[in-house]
Amino acid sequence: MAVNPPELDAALHVPGFRIGTASCGVKAPELKGKRTDLTIIAADVDCHAAGTFTQNRLRAACVDLGEKAIHEHGSDIRGIVANSGNANAGTGIREAEWAQMMIAATAESLAVAPEQLLSASTGVIGTPFPIERIESGIRAASTCEADWQGAANAIRTTDTYAKWASRRVGDFTMTGIAKGSGMIHPNMATMLGFIATDAPLSRDQMQPMLKRVVRQSFNAISVDGDTSTNDTVYLLASGLGLGHAPIQDVAEFEAALTSLCIELAQMIVRDGEGVSKFVTIQIKGAASEKDAYQVGRTIAVSPLVKTAFAGSDANWGRIVAAAGNAGIAFDADRISLSCDDVMMMENGQLHPDYCDEAGMAVFAQSEFSICLNLGMGDSEATIWTGDLTHEYITINAEYRT
Amino acid sequence: MAVNPPELDAALHVPGFRIGTASCGVKAPELKGKRTDLTIIAADVDCHAAGTFTQNRLRAACVDLGEKAIHEHGSDIRGIVANSGNANAGTGIREAEWAQMMIAATAESLAVAPEQLLSASTGVIGTPFPIERIESGIRAASTCEADWQGAANAIRTTDTYAKWASRRVGDFTMTGIAKGSGMIHPNMATMLGFIATDAPLSRDQMQPMLKRVVRQSFNAISVDGDTSTNDTVYLLASGLGLGHAPIQDVAEFEAALTSLCIELAQMIVRDGEGVSKFVTIQIKGAASEKDAYQVGRTIAVSPLVKTAFAGSDANWGRIVAAAGNAGIAFDADRISLSCDDVMMMENGQLHPDYCDEAGMAVFAQSEFSICLNLGMGDSEATIWTGDLTHEYITINAEYRT
Repeated sequence: MAVNPPELDAALHVPGFRIGTASCGVKAPELKGKRTDLTIIAADVDCHAAGTFTQNRLRAACVDLGEKAIHEHGSDIRGIVANSGNANAGTGIREAEWAQMMIAATAESLAVAPEQLLSASTGVIGTPFPIERIESGIRAASTCEADWQGAANAIRTTDTYAKWASRRVGDFTMTGIAKGSGMIHPNMATMLGFIATDAPLSRDQMQPMLKRVVRQSFNAISVDGDTSTNDTVYLLASGLGLGHAPIQDVAEFEAALTSLCIELAQMIVRDGEGVSKFVTIQIKGAASEKDAYQVGRTIAVSPLVKTAFAGSDANWGRIVAAAGNAGIAFDADRISLSCDDVMMMENGQLHPDYCDEAGMAVFAQSEFSICLNLGMGDSEATIWTGDLTHEYITINAEYRT
Repeated sequence: MAVNPPELDAALHVPGFRIGTASCGVKAPELKGKRTDLTIIAADVDCHAAGTFTQNRLRAACVDLGEKAIHEHGSDIRGIVANSGNANAGTGIREAEWAQMMIAATAESLAVAPEQLLSASTGVIGTPFPIERIESGIRAASTCEADWQGAANAIRTTDTYAKWASRRVGDFTMTGIAKGSGMIHPNMATMLGFIATDAPLSRDQMQPMLKRVVRQSFNAISVDGDTSTNDTVYLLASGLGLGHAPIQDVAEFEAALTSLCIELAQMIVRDGEGVSKFVTIQIKGAASEKDAYQVGRTIAVSPLVKTAFAGSDANWGRIVAAAGNAGIAFDADRISLSCDDVMMMENGQLHPDYCDEAGMAVFAQSEFSICLNLGMGDSEATIWTGDLTHEYITINAEYRT
């Protein structure tokens, strides 16, 4: 089940990048050959790179290694290796060793230095990492230019469909892939996103740009409020587009990157575990953007709000009650709430025209928007989320069985 | 469904207090006469009073009025009036008016001043308050000394059983009632608790004592992470016990009050919406008690942890991942985790003796404990919570229908 999953156009080839995938049976030996679970994104040239990482205090070793590599080798990154099926997290001292072995095997296969590679893992936490099966998959993976869709497929865990998107900006191309379905919440959830471009971005441009973009896209979604140990977004720039000429309009490039990342992030929500409704939460009139996001996220994680979505019950009192839990100062008599074009509350008062039937009609749809105006300022934020359904319980009560 | 609900001894009469209940059909006129939904706790003498209130920014008017009454009339409170079925919250300017009308009707009936009364409401948010039906119920309610159990029954919403507890400390008596099943989370969730005692407590003693007690009891439980607009705990002391002699051992009294409130709070978790397991989360080795509670609460609200409980799946990686989301500083290589007597992790390493079968056996029980030691200090906290089940979704997706 996924909410109106988009029909995707073919992913665009990005000059300078080749893709390899393999089936290692990471999750269980008997799955070997049945589905791909290893992805290599190989760069033909030294790339500039940026990354954003989980804010979970218990970060997987691969996240620490990735951050270090971005810091020390952000000008000469040669690729990314990622596996699904095991997060290589919560296993203690061997975690870093296993992550380094995965990188070393890939470096050998690509004939680059291990320091030039980034890695990512997603899957079960707290289970020993099957490094032998992964190493053998790395050796078996052969890379070809066009297989971004195969890469998007191989990083899936409980995702029901592969997620990719491409953009052209002037003469440049960007293609991104992402995965994520559960443990999805702002601050990076087991959510991986890898974006490659041939645009000649400088390192100094890339990191702040990625941070801004992620705030409005991957960090603006929530499926279940759990932030994973392994969340990572990488942006690689080969600079191979248009003879290395500089980007004419960086703002236009950033807008395209934002749009690409929002598209991928929305795909994750649409494919959220058990999600049957796709809900856009707009917070307006906040004193700051930070406040706006905080209120939006608090609404997006409220089990009572999410079950009201699931039940098509316009029990909108739960939305304002959840907003009140965000720890943000606002006055009850200034808030206004509408869902699509139905006003529930205006300046803290019940809207005289509101009737429950109109609210119910909005909540019965598979997609709708909520707009909460706090009346405290001019800042706003948009968060995308889903509902909380029986299927979420079924998926997660039985994830490992 | 409730997890091992306790068989309750009869509530003890507390000198100085009488109880009245009525059936008003608050939620819907056709329910009138079918179940009680109005409670009056009348004090024969001026009582000292203390209260703790929801931290939700959107507090119901009755909460504001209650806090004001405690502040201004905390030495001469004459009773509490409470209704279930409608929270009288999220409805704007008429909220305060309705709350005052409910108090005024009770004041008239009891022949006391309105300022001397406390009120509380619980139920649906954002629906106009049926004040006429409530006023007529207030006029109909006659008070008798022994009906604490009737009071506990009349404040229920989705609670499957009535919750009360009594204690004797030396020559004094205390009896408390509570309600709560959904929207339950530390910081007061639609959770009401009223405790009366005949002990001669001073106002100055009572408020800090209640605050300490609530932190370890009602604020140490979580069903669904949603904090309500109406949470309230009131403590009334008539001073009528043992000829107004002072309390010999205040610490002993506070210990009894803590034990009573923990008993009521645990009843709420056992009766949590859809809860099929009762789980005790102990956080040890924290740098501060605040940190310990923060980590415990973050684990207690994680949908992935709660669905693992529901599925009897010892997917303990989700517990440490949730701890990592608490925003509290700790080192991965110092944490230890056990569930009942099964060690999963010790000083950040997988415990060599751990096998999944042993973990599964723990999680299969209807009650078990989790102990997470952060290795950062000597502070600890205990939180009680339940699992997240299909039944929770069913109850909350269809609450109003």
